[in-house]
Amino acid sequence: MTVQEVIKAHPQPTSVDRDALLRCIDQCIDCAATCTSCADACLGEQNVGELVRCIRLNHDCADACDATGRILTRQTAPDVGVLRAAIQACAVACGACGDECERHAEHHEHCRVCSRSCRRCEQACNDLLAVIG
Amino acid sequence: MTVQEVIKAHPQPTSVDRDALLRCIDQCIDCAATCTSCADACLGEQNVGELVRCIRLNHDCADACDATGRILTRQTAPDVGVLRAAIQACAVACGACGDECERHAEHHEHCRVCSRSCRRCEQACNDLLAVIG
Amino acid sequence: MTVQEVIKAHPQPTSVDRDALLRCIDQCIDCAATCTSCADACLGEQNVGELVRCIRLNHDCADACDATGRILTRQTAPDVGVLRAAIQACAVACGACGDECERHAEHHEHCRVCSRSCRRCEQACNDLLAVIG
Amino acid sequence: MTVQEVIKAHPQPTSVDRDALLRCIDQCIDCAATCTSCADACLGEQNVGELVRCIRLNHDCADACDATGRILTRQTAPDVGVLRAAIQACAVACGACGDECERHAEHHEHCRVCSRSCRRCEQACNDLLAVIG
Repeated sequence: MTVQEVIKAHPQPTSVDRDALLRCIDQCIDCAATCTSCADACLGEQNVGELVRCIRLNHDCADACDATGRILTRQTAPDVGVLRAAIQACAVACGACGDECERHAEHHEHCRVCSRSCRRCEQACNDLLAVIG
Repeated sequence: MTVQEVIKAHPQPTSVDRDALLRCIDQCIDCAATCTSCADACLGEQNVGELVRCIRLNHDCADACDATGRILTRQTAPDVGVLRAAIQACAVACGACGDECERHAEHHEHCRVCSRSCRRCEQACNDLLAVIG
Repeated sequence: MTVQEVIKAHPQPTSVDRDALLRCIDQCIDCAATCTSCADACLGEQNVGELVRCIRLNHDCADACDATGRILTRQTAPDVGVLRAAIQACAVACGACGDECERHAEHHEHCRVCSRSCRRCEQACNDLLAVIG
Repeated sequence: MTVQEVIKAHPQPTSVDRDALLRCIDQCIDCAATCTSCADACLGEQNVGELVRCIRLNHDCADACDATGRILTRQTAPDVGVLRAAIQACAVACGACGDECERHAEHHEHCRVCSRSCRRCEQACNDLLAVIG
């Protein structure tokens, strides 16, 4: 993604491990869009009544990923405590949404795809937390 | 705000203490807008170079408040772990931004106003965490 | 709202009619939150299958109001063409969502409340467009 | 991006030209993140005072792209008027931001990269408008 090129051209690169950071930003952006899309696909299903909890968690996860993706994208004058709490909130939202989507993965391909995106983002958050100090 | 009327008309009210919940939603919405506005006012100041960290934290706080406000607004099929982590991330962002804005409060009225909005939101988050179980 | 105090303390006030501007910002923020809440209330209804279009338009309207509210909040170095197009998109989204919510107003109080919020925001957008030149 | 897989698995595919739609969603997501990142890189530059208008337009463009990307991602029960107005607002914001970033492209690599991302998104919006009817 182009955002990676911009971060590489940033005048004040942070000391955070760049690979872990860029991977997490990438996954946050991907997962936010995927969850927005999965919520909408669930809404279009015949059995929408059975997907209410999935839609709810899709929205929460999209919001958490979107906010965390933006916060991590910024390199200027970061506050590690703010970063850490945002990444943790994102990992929790991805975990809950990934679990719920997995329950519908057999019947709905969009839930299967979304579940994997949530897992990857949760992992990227945990990897980043491990190196952020 | 109108959002409170909608929540009161919700078919599946949550068991969370409603006063603490509505107050926190209100403060998240208010603080998100205030931080977006303070970042922009800082950007318009002659001494913008001295306000870089303030602008950064304003943006982070706006993102955290915006996401948390949306997540708390939803009453259908909530996940308490997701709520809790989002509120915690919001409180941390409000605390950091409130501290930084306070450092500029004497010279910039917008930072003074924003600092107080951050404090109120941080308090509302902590109050909600105390009752959310 | 506190955001109004910050805008009044801005070092570079825009030449746009301030009353029309502040009213529109207020309505955008209110309508974004109300639509997010109405979508969630619809999702919690027994007859969610009949409210699919309402939920869809609630989400679109929340997104348009959120973006337009943020854009209008900024006073530093504005581009009138960008403002105008954002306000127009917001007015269209509010109009469509207000119409759809009105269709369900008799059966769902949250749709009735949301419909009125959409109307007020649409009006505030049109009033601002009329003075923005 | 994973969002494309979810849209391809959607139970109610829209009649809009899928290639033009997916390309526009992709560009909106990419440009939103790139503009958020460029605003932050500008904020970290020594000559931030000369980049104020660029930062302002980066934020506006990020907001417009983010909202439009989300709106276009939804396939269930769309309103063509809402889509059209959102895409138009996005194209205008991308045009203004692309112009401003281009003015700084020679001195700042992040502005050069961001300018190209804005151009691609503006083009994808105009291509989608041409086929959306």
